[in-house]
Amino acid sequence: MDLKGVIRNVPDFPKPGIQFKDITTLLLNPQAFQYTINCFVDRYTSLNINAIVAVESRGFIFGSVIAYNLKCPLVLARKKGKLPAEKITESFALEYGWDTIEMHVDALKEGQRVVIVDDLLATGGTVSAVVKLVKQLKAIPIEAGFVIELPALKGREILQPLPVFSLVQFDDI
Amino acid sequence: MDLKGVIRNVPDFPKPGIQFKDITTLLLNPQAFQYTINCFVDRYTSLNINAIVAVESRGFIFGSVIAYNLKCPLVLARKKGKLPAEKITESFALEYGWDTIEMHVDALKEGQRVVIVDDLLATGGTVSAVVKLVKQLKAIPIEAGFVIELPALKGREILQPLPVFSLVQFDDI
Repeated sequence: MDLKGVIRNVPDFPKPGIQFKDITTLLLNPQAFQYTINCFVDRYTSLNINAIVAVESRGFIFGSVIAYNLKCPLVLARKKGKLPAEKITESFALEYGWDTIEMHVDALKEGQRVVIVDDLLATGGTVSAVVKLVKQLKAIPIEAGFVIELPALKGREILQPLPVFSLVQFDDI
Repeated sequence: MDLKGVIRNVPDFPKPGIQFKDITTLLLNPQAFQYTINCFVDRYTSLNINAIVAVESRGFIFGSVIAYNLKCPLVLARKKGKLPAEKITESFALEYGWDTIEMHVDALKEGQRVVIVDDLLATGGTVSAVVKLVKQLKAIPIEAGFVIELPALKGREILQPLPVFSLVQFDDI
């Protein structure tokens, strides 16, 4: 399946010079969405994964369907102030300033084999912070899974030694 | 299945006096999540629905899995500034001030039978605005579907004449 062909490129979003990869056109195409999800589900069935961590907010779209199909717990990694119960927090650097990601303390159990799911791997800052949260709860990060990877931004290197899996790669950013 | 029993009540979130209904505990329970999704899928199969509109951000979690199972297009209704391509916009009143919700102009086609999905029906302000966006694109809103309804806030009345479907209702808010 030509997944690249169903992802829309939007030039100059969110600011001039950026080539934004828009997954909404993939989501409008049921065959493409089925194919995308099934690639992950086949892979994570064979890797014996027993929890999916979905990263707010586009990661929710893919992570939730993967967890449903694997019949495993779905954990939300959310932006600051959204989770209501007792939680842990990690900050990470943005281009200018800092951002924060949070997870409930009861979200994962010791020894659970976890995949972190998001729509796109850019610099890897958010998912690096999520890996720290997973480890703090003594679960085991097995892999980070993305629909799209932008290899030029070297997120894969930032996430080392965690394996990275992505369905499509774009060289223009 | 006792869905109410797997939804956590968090008192005084996000502010004193509010009884927050936390779906993260439902998502951690694969049986409860399967049951939740299957209720919607059974219903919307029989209603011959051909597009799901998921409302940012917790609506993404349920809407995406429902659309995957129905094998129908998934449309995102997003907060201001998140959608990259040509879009339409509706504003709605909050307790203090206004918020805005957006949808891509190519998200729906004329005559498509649409269900709008979110996690929780409170006052109905957001989904009322989404209904306007759906109609602007000449698609047909058939129903709004929620995991949780807070009947005391009368969202169901605000959404009239659109039918509302919810899996569980809480009287304490």
